[in-house]
Formats: sequence, C-alpha cells, structure tokens
Amino acid sequence: MGEFELIQRYFATAPCAQGGDGVVRGIGDDCALLAVSTGEQLAVSTDTLVAGVHFPAVCDPFLLGQRALAVSASDLAAMGATPVAFTLALTLDQADAVWLEAFAKGLQRMAAACTLALVGGDTTRGPLSMTLTVFGRVPAGQALTRSGAREGDLLCVGGQLGDAAGALPLVLGQHEAAAEISEPLLARYWSPMPQLALGQALRGQATAALDISDGLLADCGHIAKASGVALQIEAARIPLSAALCALIGHERALSCALSGGDDYRLAFTLPPERLSVIQADWPEVRMIGQVVAGRGVHLLDAAGQVIEAPHGGYQHF
Amino acid sequence: MGEFELIQRYFATAPCAQGGDGVVRGIGDDCALLAVSTGEQLAVSTDTLVAGVHFPAVCDPFLLGQRALAVSASDLAAMGATPVAFTLALTLDQADAVWLEAFAKGLQRMAAACTLALVGGDTTRGPLSMTLTVFGRVPAGQALTRSGAREGDLLCVGGQLGDAAGALPLVLGQHEAAAEISEPLLARYWSPMPQLALGQALRGQATAALDISDGLLADCGHIAKASGVALQIEAARIPLSAALCALIGHERALSCALSGGDDYRLAFTLPPERLSVIQADWPEVRMIGQVVAGRGVHLLDAAGQVIEAPHGGYQHF
Repeated sequence: MGEFELIQRYFATAPCAQGGDGVVRGIGDDCALLAVSTGEQLAVSTDTLVAGVHFPAVCDPFLLGQRALAVSASDLAAMGATPVAFTLALTLDQADAVWLEAFAKGLQRMAAACTLALVGGDTTRGPLSMTLTVFGRVPAGQALTRSGAREGDLLCVGGQLGDAAGALPLVLGQHEAAAEISEPLLARYWSPMPQLALGQALRGQATAALDISDGLLADCGHIAKASGVALQIEAARIPLSAALCALIGHERALSCALSGGDDYRLAFTLPPERLSVIQADWPEVRMIGQVVAGRGVHLLDAAGQVIEAPHGGYQHF
Repeated sequence: MGEFELIQRYFATAPCAQGGDGVVRGIGDDCALLAVSTGEQLAVSTDTLVAGVHFPAVCDPFLLGQRALAVSASDLAAMGATPVAFTLALTLDQADAVWLEAFAKGLQRMAAACTLALVGGDTTRGPLSMTLTVFGRVPAGQALTRSGAREGDLLCVGGQLGDAAGALPLVLGQHEAAAEISEPLLARYWSPMPQLALGQALRGQATAALDISDGLLADCGHIAKASGVALQIEAARIPLSAALCALIGHERALSCALSGGDDYRLAFTLPPERLSVIQADWPEVRMIGQVVAGRGVHLLDAAGQVIEAPHGGYQHF
C-alpha cells in the first residue's frame, strides 16, 4: 500500500480529520492552515513516543492511539489552552491494515474526547514511533506557565497520582491482579484523560502550572526553578488510589506518585483563597503543599520534618 | 547526561532558540506560544526523517541538521508562508556530545538562513530519527495550494531538478567523482535551500504550488488531481544541471528529475502573462509545460508526442 492510500484510508477519512473550529485547511496540502482569533495566541507542544521505551513494543494499537494523543494533549491542559488541532508523524515497520485501523480508531476516540482535529502529518517507514504536535488557543497573556508561583501559594494536584507507574508491571504482563484492581490502573496508563477543562478553569486563578509526566518531584522541581521558589510537599496529602495501594501497598504507591511518571495530571500553585472555588467544580483537586522562600522541592512527613527525597523523575537518557 | 541538561546545552542556548518575530514564548514550558497577527493564518507542516531510510545511518551530523530543517521549511515555501518557528523531536540511541553539537550547529545554520526560531520539541531515546514541525504565517486566503491550477496556465519549476537523487550514490559512498561534479550535487542533497522568497512572491500570482519532494511526476500528479486538470510536461524543457549530466548522462539525469525525489524546489502553475514578472527576479524559474483539460500528468517529447512515463515517485511503503 502506498503512503497516500494509507493516509487516505485510515487518517484522512477519520471524523477528526474533517476540520473543526480554527482549522482553515486540514490534511491534503503542503501545510495545514490554522486561524487564530484576535487577542488569542497559539500554544504548541510536541511529544514523541518510541516503541519499547514509552510503550510496550507489542501492545493494543487502539489503546496506543488513545494514549499517544492524550499524552500530547495534556500539555495543552497544562497551559490552560483550548484544543484546536494536532499533527501525527507515524513511523512504522510496515503498513499493517489491522494495526492501522485499530490505531486510527483509538486516536479518533481521544481526538473526539479532546475536540482536537487531525490536520496533517507524515507516515514513514522505520522502527515504530510517533510524534504528535498539538495546537491550542489561549487568550493573550493568560497562558498558565511554570514561572509564576509565589511564596504563600498552595501547591495542588488534579487528582490521584502514581496509578500509571504502578500499572506498568500489569501493562508489561509481568504481574496479574483481580479485575477491580487492574482495570482502573490499566485505564490510567492507557487512556489518561488530559485535564483540559481544569486547565482552562485555572486561567486567571493558578499562578503556575504544568502536567506531571516525569513524576511529581521532578516536575515540581521545574516549577520551583522557573518561579525562583521552594515547594514543600506534605507526603500524607498526596492522593493515592485504593486500587494502587491494594496492588503494591501504601509505601510503594507513594513512591510511584513521587517519582513514577506518566500521570498526566496537572500540578499547580494558587493563592489559598482560590482553592475552594476550584474544588467546588473539581472535588478531585487536592492541596498537597505550599510555596515557600528558597529553592528546590522538599518532602515533609506528618510532623513537618523533611524526608530524604528519593532521586526523582524519569531520566530520558 | 539527563534530557534537560542535553536540551539546555545544545538547543535551548542556540541563537535560533532566543525567539523571533511571532514567538511569545519559546523553549522551557509545557507549550510554546505563537502570536498570529490579525488577518493572518498559521501554516503548519510536519516531516519525519528516519536513519537508513531518509538519510544514511552514518553521516555528518552538521549536514543532517541542515537538511532536516530544510526539508521541512520547504513546505512553508510551497504555501507562500513567511517562516516563524519550528519544533524538533529528536530520537537518539545515545546522547553523544560531539554528534549533538554538530547537529545543533547545522540546524542553527539552516534556521538562521530561513529565519526560523526553535520553540520547543522533545528528545527521546530510540533508533535515530527526527520529526520537525514548522510554522509560518500567511495572509488569510492567500496561501498557495494545490487545487487552483486552471486550463491555460503554465507549469513552472523553481530551478534544476534531479541533482539530489543523482547525488545519492555519492552520498552513500558508492561512487566518487571529481570535486567540480560531486560538490554541487552533494550540496543539493545535504542543504537544499527552501525557496521561501519565491514562494512568498508567488502569492497572488501562482494558481497552484507545491514543493517537489517525491519526484516531479508524482508531485505534479497531486496538483493535477487536486485541481481537476491534466498537466503536460515537455521533457526537453526540464532544467538539468551540467554536473548531473556529466555524472550520469542526460537520459539518467532526466529520469532523476522525473522520479527521483528530494528536490525541494517549487513546482507551480500560473497564467502565461505572469511568467516574465516572476522570471525577472528568479531567472532560474523555468516553464516546463502547461495545464490542459483532462486528468493526470503527461510527458511529451520534442514533437509533442506523449512519452510512456516511468512509474513515478518515491513510494514510502
């Protein structure tokens, strides 16, 4: 099958490739064309997933399609952007019709959930990997960044952490568990829902934000550094799921939350008086610490004593 | 070396990563932010290059950096867009400092030549490949597309064709030639200069345009199909370089021009009276045929007879 037929059959005809708000021209020319309204800016993020590194080389292509787009769209959530479109650069060993059809369906499902239009890309031959670039719009000057956290702000997260990292032995088939434990954890790994609505609601509320992809400690380190502050995290406040604790116990669950990665939930700082406003609509949001003067990220036990933090975060090399 | 240190050392500190016109926020947050002026649209294109498929697995990283960006920027030229920014998703087996420094320098050189700012990306571990997404701005409604060619238009190309395809045996070290032959051909392979200024000049002049990446015949086929017309190409008018003809003879040079790919020169259609205006500033532009009623691409000999066209274009699978 030629490249053009492949694109036509599985991607160009997908519902998500039929355009959307802000899409002037989609698949089929040298470039896509996006429109940006007066007073808005375009948020752009690129993520690559490599087989055997970011997902198992042998896995369900439908789930992979879902996950690939979710991971990228999470960066739009972190900026408070409204989703517009994405491009898909897909590198494949071979054009396998069954695989492609399932992958395109998974992609389509997440695109519909995020209201993201597929506007272009590239298909190439080579070891399986995919690079997605996502586009969102945000009112000028209102994007959430990592650099605005201020002393006295609270540190919050968008929900339970550690599930995806804890699910990895299940994902890799190294471990089995009862359905009531494995199913919610596998779902958190394969289809993390980007917190897009929460991100948009945080515009004008949060002072700093990002999405947790490399582990809470490592990613909070980015906020601390960019904002020139220290972040104190109270270990006991970190929300952990019952399923994760049942699978691996509380201590290892906490370790997954701190350093495991793949959460794709928002971490953000905001003045204390704004927390109740956010929690009214997002009860899963949890305050886990505070912003103080200083540098770095400090993990505190129940007595407020600093715990020696494990070396944090997924290292890509 | 960690991912963040790697990005910081070789990419975030590059001159092209220090922002530019239209860049509100570059490397360092979850998303980059681009500004688009009122009345303009954003053109977006993504291209992947895989080691061993799109470039030799062992090659000069400086040249590879140049070429990777040139290939992508050529799509902006094809739309008549003014370059703004790009993202780089780089997948590497290992973080080799010498390789990365040279690659970043080559990228920087092409970025400066094209006035493209590096605004973000991703570095991942895996088989060597890179996906670049480029952004340009274009006045609303003025982007060059593939679909506007009309009966009576002339078919033109932006310069000599076939050099990059003809250079491939030199690139792969399978063949050697005197410097006066090999150097210009290798330069056309490794640093094809995107015809950005020509593309912008064609706004409001050309009725259809694209960049030739898969070979003249295959790419003209896209214009013919999208515009609902036939294209006649006069074989004798196709511009071939003296170096290419000296290397492989006229017949094989023509074959490279027709079906070889990797030219990254513009092909476009325009009303006959506009050709002299364009050629006044771009004397390398050549009229090679015309738009007629019908379907497909037809290659004509000097007597105007249809030549059986070779099967055209690079097939990605």
